[in-house]
Amino acid sequence: MMKINELVDGTRGKFCALISSLNKGVTAKGATYLSFVLQDKTGNIDAKFWSPSADEVATLKAGMVVEIDGEVLSYNKQLQMKINGVKIIDRSTIDLNDFIKEGDIPRSQLKANITEVINSFENQKLKTLILKVMEHYELDFYNYPAAAKIHHDFVGGLATHVWGMMKLAMSICECYPSLNKELLLTGVILHDIGKCIELSGPVITEYTVEGKLLGHISIMQAIVAQVAKENGIEGEEVILVRHMILSHHGEYEYGSPILPMIPEAEILHYIDNIDARMNVLAKAYDGVKEGEFTSRQFALENRAFYKSKL
Amino acid sequence: MMKINELVDGTRGKFCALISSLNKGVTAKGATYLSFVLQDKTGNIDAKFWSPSADEVATLKAGMVVEIDGEVLSYNKQLQMKINGVKIIDRSTIDLNDFIKEGDIPRSQLKANITEVINSFENQKLKTLILKVMEHYELDFYNYPAAAKIHHDFVGGLATHVWGMMKLAMSICECYPSLNKELLLTGVILHDIGKCIELSGPVITEYTVEGKLLGHISIMQAIVAQVAKENGIEGEEVILVRHMILSHHGEYEYGSPILPMIPEAEILHYIDNIDARMNVLAKAYDGVKEGEFTSRQFALENRAFYKSKL
Amino acid sequence: MMKINELVDGTRGKFCALISSLNKGVTAKGATYLSFVLQDKTGNIDAKFWSPSADEVATLKAGMVVEIDGEVLSYNKQLQMKINGVKIIDRSTIDLNDFIKEGDIPRSQLKANITEVINSFENQKLKTLILKVMEHYELDFYNYPAAAKIHHDFVGGLATHVWGMMKLAMSICECYPSLNKELLLTGVILHDIGKCIELSGPVITEYTVEGKLLGHISIMQAIVAQVAKENGIEGEEVILVRHMILSHHGEYEYGSPILPMIPEAEILHYIDNIDARMNVLAKAYDGVKEGEFTSRQFALENRAFYKSKL
Amino acid sequence: MMKINELVDGTRGKFCALISSLNKGVTAKGATYLSFVLQDKTGNIDAKFWSPSADEVATLKAGMVVEIDGEVLSYNKQLQMKINGVKIIDRSTIDLNDFIKEGDIPRSQLKANITEVINSFENQKLKTLILKVMEHYELDFYNYPAAAKIHHDFVGGLATHVWGMMKLAMSICECYPSLNKELLLTGVILHDIGKCIELSGPVITEYTVEGKLLGHISIMQAIVAQVAKENGIEGEEVILVRHMILSHHGEYEYGSPILPMIPEAEILHYIDNIDARMNVLAKAYDGVKEGEFTSRQFALENRAFYKSKL
Amino acid sequence: MMKINELVDGTRGKFCALISSLNKGVTAKGATYLSFVLQDKTGNIDAKFWSPSADEVATLKAGMVVEIDGEVLSYNKQLQMKINGVKIIDRSTIDLNDFIKEGDIPRSQLKANITEVINSFENQKLKTLILKVMEHYELDFYNYPAAAKIHHDFVGGLATHVWGMMKLAMSICECYPSLNKELLLTGVILHDIGKCIELSGPVITEYTVEGKLLGHISIMQAIVAQVAKENGIEGEEVILVRHMILSHHGEYEYGSPILPMIPEAEILHYIDNIDARMNVLAKAYDGVKEGEFTSRQFALENRAFYKSKL
Amino acid sequence: MMKINELVDGTRGKFCALISSLNKGVTAKGATYLSFVLQDKTGNIDAKFWSPSADEVATLKAGMVVEIDGEVLSYNKQLQMKINGVKIIDRSTIDLNDFIKEGDIPRSQLKANITEVINSFENQKLKTLILKVMEHYELDFYNYPAAAKIHHDFVGGLATHVWGMMKLAMSICECYPSLNKELLLTGVILHDIGKCIELSGPVITEYTVEGKLLGHISIMQAIVAQVAKENGIEGEEVILVRHMILSHHGEYEYGSPILPMIPEAEILHYIDNIDARMNVLAKAYDGVKEGEFTSRQFALENRAFYKSKL
Repeated sequence: MMKINELVDGTRGKFCALISSLNKGVTAKGATYLSFVLQDKTGNIDAKFWSPSADEVATLKAGMVVEIDGEVLSYNKQLQMKINGVKIIDRSTIDLNDFIKEGDIPRSQLKANITEVINSFENQKLKTLILKVMEHYELDFYNYPAAAKIHHDFVGGLATHVWGMMKLAMSICECYPSLNKELLLTGVILHDIGKCIELSGPVITEYTVEGKLLGHISIMQAIVAQVAKENGIEGEEVILVRHMILSHHGEYEYGSPILPMIPEAEILHYIDNIDARMNVLAKAYDGVKEGEFTSRQFALENRAFYKSKL
Repeated sequence: MMKINELVDGTRGKFCALISSLNKGVTAKGATYLSFVLQDKTGNIDAKFWSPSADEVATLKAGMVVEIDGEVLSYNKQLQMKINGVKIIDRSTIDLNDFIKEGDIPRSQLKANITEVINSFENQKLKTLILKVMEHYELDFYNYPAAAKIHHDFVGGLATHVWGMMKLAMSICECYPSLNKELLLTGVILHDIGKCIELSGPVITEYTVEGKLLGHISIMQAIVAQVAKENGIEGEEVILVRHMILSHHGEYEYGSPILPMIPEAEILHYIDNIDARMNVLAKAYDGVKEGEFTSRQFALENRAFYKSKL
Repeated sequence: MMKINELVDGTRGKFCALISSLNKGVTAKGATYLSFVLQDKTGNIDAKFWSPSADEVATLKAGMVVEIDGEVLSYNKQLQMKINGVKIIDRSTIDLNDFIKEGDIPRSQLKANITEVINSFENQKLKTLILKVMEHYELDFYNYPAAAKIHHDFVGGLATHVWGMMKLAMSICECYPSLNKELLLTGVILHDIGKCIELSGPVITEYTVEGKLLGHISIMQAIVAQVAKENGIEGEEVILVRHMILSHHGEYEYGSPILPMIPEAEILHYIDNIDARMNVLAKAYDGVKEGEFTSRQFALENRAFYKSKL
Repeated sequence: MMKINELVDGTRGKFCALISSLNKGVTAKGATYLSFVLQDKTGNIDAKFWSPSADEVATLKAGMVVEIDGEVLSYNKQLQMKINGVKIIDRSTIDLNDFIKEGDIPRSQLKANITEVINSFENQKLKTLILKVMEHYELDFYNYPAAAKIHHDFVGGLATHVWGMMKLAMSICECYPSLNKELLLTGVILHDIGKCIELSGPVITEYTVEGKLLGHISIMQAIVAQVAKENGIEGEEVILVRHMILSHHGEYEYGSPILPMIPEAEILHYIDNIDARMNVLAKAYDGVKEGEFTSRQFALENRAFYKSKL
Repeated sequence: MMKINELVDGTRGKFCALISSLNKGVTAKGATYLSFVLQDKTGNIDAKFWSPSADEVATLKAGMVVEIDGEVLSYNKQLQMKINGVKIIDRSTIDLNDFIKEGDIPRSQLKANITEVINSFENQKLKTLILKVMEHYELDFYNYPAAAKIHHDFVGGLATHVWGMMKLAMSICECYPSLNKELLLTGVILHDIGKCIELSGPVITEYTVEGKLLGHISIMQAIVAQVAKENGIEGEEVILVRHMILSHHGEYEYGSPILPMIPEAEILHYIDNIDARMNVLAKAYDGVKEGEFTSRQFALENRAFYKSKL
Repeated sequence: MMKINELVDGTRGKFCALISSLNKGVTAKGATYLSFVLQDKTGNIDAKFWSPSADEVATLKAGMVVEIDGEVLSYNKQLQMKINGVKIIDRSTIDLNDFIKEGDIPRSQLKANITEVINSFENQKLKTLILKVMEHYELDFYNYPAAAKIHHDFVGGLATHVWGMMKLAMSICECYPSLNKELLLTGVILHDIGKCIELSGPVITEYTVEGKLLGHISIMQAIVAQVAKENGIEGEEVILVRHMILSHHGEYEYGSPILPMIPEAEILHYIDNIDARMNVLAKAYDGVKEGEFTSRQFALENRAFYKSKL
């Protein structure tokens, strides 16, 4: 069966996809239609179902896996699917992983890499703090995306982002040996784990009520305080790690209640930004030709980036 | 012996005071002199000691109680003391409370008022949350100032500020009955208790390292999470109280990582502001004549306020 | 006949409504259609008339009362009416008050409450100033909305808002006795009367040319200056009331050319905000279920508010 | 007797001056000294009186004319006078105009120029409005400065500034004939007359209480409304002139509650800026050599300007 | 044949136009349609072609001249053309100038006026600098628009804008004789010539890649540096002209890396603004009736302007 | 002879130093004194000369090397020298390098490292561009500081900063292989060479007139354009390098007229920041004890940084 990244203008036929979002609309004539975003492991595509039955309108929901019968059109330079029929697929008959984007590095590899670094720590307080947090959150840590939409928005995205930052952190510590490498790496590993509570999960990711009312920064800061207290971890390490989590967005208006006041917090903020921006840019350039510009990128201060011919 | 609020231009003689700050200076001729802020229960005054002995330079410290021999001058419309001699007073011979400003309402009365309201709560989760926090922090809660400098900067200032806000909260709940009064009052009582960790104490108040690196908002949010978990308090109450603490500064740039998203959080922010501003204004008008303006008030967006003749 | 707040998905039939706004549109096929907002005393609803006659396109206007024959659909979670026919109702046969939202407190009661407070004033200058302004504006004061859209947007909204603020003002003066209560109440009563010139009237409310070019703040400030001069009212009262009117928006960017410089002006700004925001929130929560969020509220810095289960 | 603009490093002797400001200070040794700004028609100079008698400290006040015996030093590249003795001069024996800076154009000439333009008006409403305002304010209009400090801060400065703007206005109307020249000129003539109430007068200029609490923009807007009403001037002219006065600062943060909404208001704002800035620059360049920069100019966004060699 | 400015609601028939932009759309039913902006010398109009053939969809492009068969509708108070048929016109048979808006002053006249001023220069360095730049850019200088959209967006718009500014510059130099007129005029003439590289040309104007990546300010600054070096022009003139070009946008956020630091640069910024704004206003008022407001003008801080009845 | 970094509270005697700044002052008694900043290779110290002769006041200038006879005091926790006598040293008898701070890496080593990277380039256009620029600026490139004050303010600071950035650039390119490493390195090497014109030189560094009026960003952009044209280097490389130079400050308000639009420009901005900030922090921590905070750092958004005990 076809995959989404194989579709081109004019393709007709059937393929399976996960409904990643679904909205009802009304045509000028008063008829109800359905707007989908469909996804599989290879990508996603917008789709319109102009003539659903009343039953289909009532039954279809985001999160379902469906078999689509349709044809592909090009609309404003973007592909769009016109749906002729939809059949719901029984979840028990498919492997959901076939419908979910994943990063370039397998999750097992990410886990091996990150664990190896943690095991090498000499500072036992930092090491224990990470391991105790991981006792609760390891499963989600390797499954969650790093954000609902902006960057690393795929299964395993959070760990992919953390590993990208860890590599940067280790390089930069070689350039500036006065930095405390294990403190910085602890900040990198823990800084975003609050997202495992802020967000609903790796598929059809949304903000939870707790996530909206507290935010991942404050959620994680409280978890670190609690894990440290429960495990008798004391000393400056705990305050500094809490400080790094609180300050890693780097500016008040981005939700950090405190700005970086140690070099490791300053660098944590920088490498968080670099890795997120490189991921946003990679997505933005996807499908752009040399000599042209990307669309405006909200996460990059609304700039359009040029794809050079070099 | 004279009190500080009795001093006028030309007063000479001896009086006792607490050194609330002390800085060394060097005159144009290279001689060392000492600049003090002196305080007792009735107020404070700047003082200069132009010819301290080397021994006095080495010995005198902020926090000491001293007997001053000096005379009062008027300098740029403000009184300043010129010190002729300083004698250190043995702390065991004096009652430190004689040297510390206190609010208009005695602390015992504040405690009675606030406790009565807590005891009247019908929501047992909120009531337990407050009482369990108070088990750890009650002593400091009734002794700490509400801020190092800006407003309610006196022993018992925190509880004075909280009681002022509680009265406002109860009035406003009568005007808008849809507000959840006990939730709002819980926010009022707990919102600033993190200052008991952020600040060093009721006398010679400074920021602690933990206070600077985490801030009272995040400190308190983590305490509430922990107290709730330790005492098995669950449900939306805990998240809403944490939300109110996080959002009570009302704007990102004032250190709230999350903005108010329930009406009680919005009102908490407003009455915190009103009570703090009314206290700043009361201090600013002190000594200003009708028909004149106060000095510019940093905490009031640098405005000078007019003292009307009405 | 049905009222708008009785309509549900699927309702068919006839009902009467005031056209509160009307726009022409063109379908993709080039046909003209009409978009209405319809209102009666109980609420309002969007409506589409897909096939009006050329005569209907030319005749129908905002401000008319009409009998609608139609059916109700649910579109993006909001009700929308599909109109099958429209009949214009002769204004002389209906009571326009049946089609206009009103506040919870009857206007006669608002007038009795407010008048009682004015009559109790001891300061004769302030009392005379209010009464002389009311000679010209009393009728509009009790009929106008407090704003074209944002808050208290109903017949009598201005007086409802003023009475809400007066209750807050009297409560807060009890908490802070140094405030001049009659000065503050004068500011509350007069601060928004310029809206009777800035806005076109209680129904189909729009900004007037004078309102756009001058603004209600400056209009009212000039009226107070003039009324004072014509009636020989002199002294600081007049300047302070003008100051309170000018400064009540509290920030330059919200149209106050001067910021509050007396405590009563500062409090006026705060209670104006509190009462307006509580009204915006009440409207925003209308129809929202517990555990869900309101839509984003432009007047509340674009925040969505949570409806708690407590 | 010497004039201030004749003083150089090393000058000793006597000269007469107006005390334009005076502050008391205390030396490191505790002695009282006096800091003056002294002025005559030719300029001003800072001065220090290190050893005044107690009597002199009590008697000397800003606004007095005095005979100074002193010597001139150069301090941080600026001249400063060291005062050896001060003698108060009886005001009845001197002509205050000898101590007050005046503009380059005599006030009689300014009055002739401006009056000629007013008399040429064809629009009788605008002409009457100006003439009726002038009945009350003409004397002050030709004597007041345009600002307390920033620009045109000399006797007649207001009229000098207005005449500078009128010339610009007439030039620009030739470039853009669609502008209504008489409307624009009315705005130019009236826009700043509120300063005759906002400021205390042409000598030792300070802000009045009314000026601080209302601001010249709002004061003048109310005067125009009142003068128009008293003289039966109606029609759009009055609203447009009030609009131009309200909007002439061009931005909310500079105290305009309304932004320009007619081309004449936009141009009024621009030429007010151009004429004020050219005056600030002329003062800033005074004494600066070619190839050097002026000091930073607060009124020019803190920029330092270069004096070119061309 | 009809001209665009002759079209009214209901007009039917044929006329010729240049396609100034063209976008594909898809109707709710999935059919492809085309949206045009059509222009001729007299104006432009939006147009929809609801039923193009597949061949027409593939062939029609912006920049073509076409004969349109259609009818005019009024939609939201704006005219829109419904196209029934399109015929491509051979470019060799028409004069493209018939389809391009031009300014009120013929380009030959602009050239005569500007050249006369240049020839009158006494400063030979400035004169040579202008003439050498013109050797490369004169043709484009008299053909390019001053901006892609905002103001003076027509053939010859750049020279029209420059000439408007030159007249202002010469007037203002008469009001303030200390300004160096030839320096200011050099800045006026050269300041925007970088747009001849930043923009693609006078028809269907777009930003070039070089324009987007460098901006006209930096492009022109480098050209002046190079032309000066190649022609041996040295001295302060070159630096001052480069400074004026760099600073003419007047604020960092509008793309000036340096703010004005000489009076001529300050004035250049002001007159650039005045002339551009007067042109924006003239376009905005086009078709607006007395007593009404223009639409909101993005280039004028989103204000709507009032068309007075005076 | 003593070095500056050997001085402690109480040191008396003679030592040689370069006068890095010098200001005249006047004591309260009217006597002239001199304030110095003195430096040698090991550091700098503030110094006061309370009783210079008239001849010394006239002769001493910043940039001279002098022998100081004095004693060291501690003032507000900072060392200050009290000068008893000053003797001017003949420049021909000393090696100026003994008085100038240098970085940790010898300049010869920096040159070897940077040259090796340039020689390894495969892209001949970029390589030629760098080499041709270096023909003119190599000497200054290895001698200039990277800034007058903020960071890398020592002889060779510019090259030290560039080499620090090159190491970062090469590390980051390994993490993100899609980056064009040679393009990024070209940006790193050339981005700040404009400072060789913007600043006066490696000793007593000040801004030049050209530097103030144009800025190093615009100066360098024009140099690259010119060098490319003179050497026939064409193609996208030149525009991209000019773009990187223009955009490397990353925000309009920091003087970039264009924001980064290619990934290499975005990264250039980030590593410029990281290396500068790490240098500022290293200087700020100098002399700060564990458990204490640095002074507020203007270049780090006015934050004070904590020196942890880890």
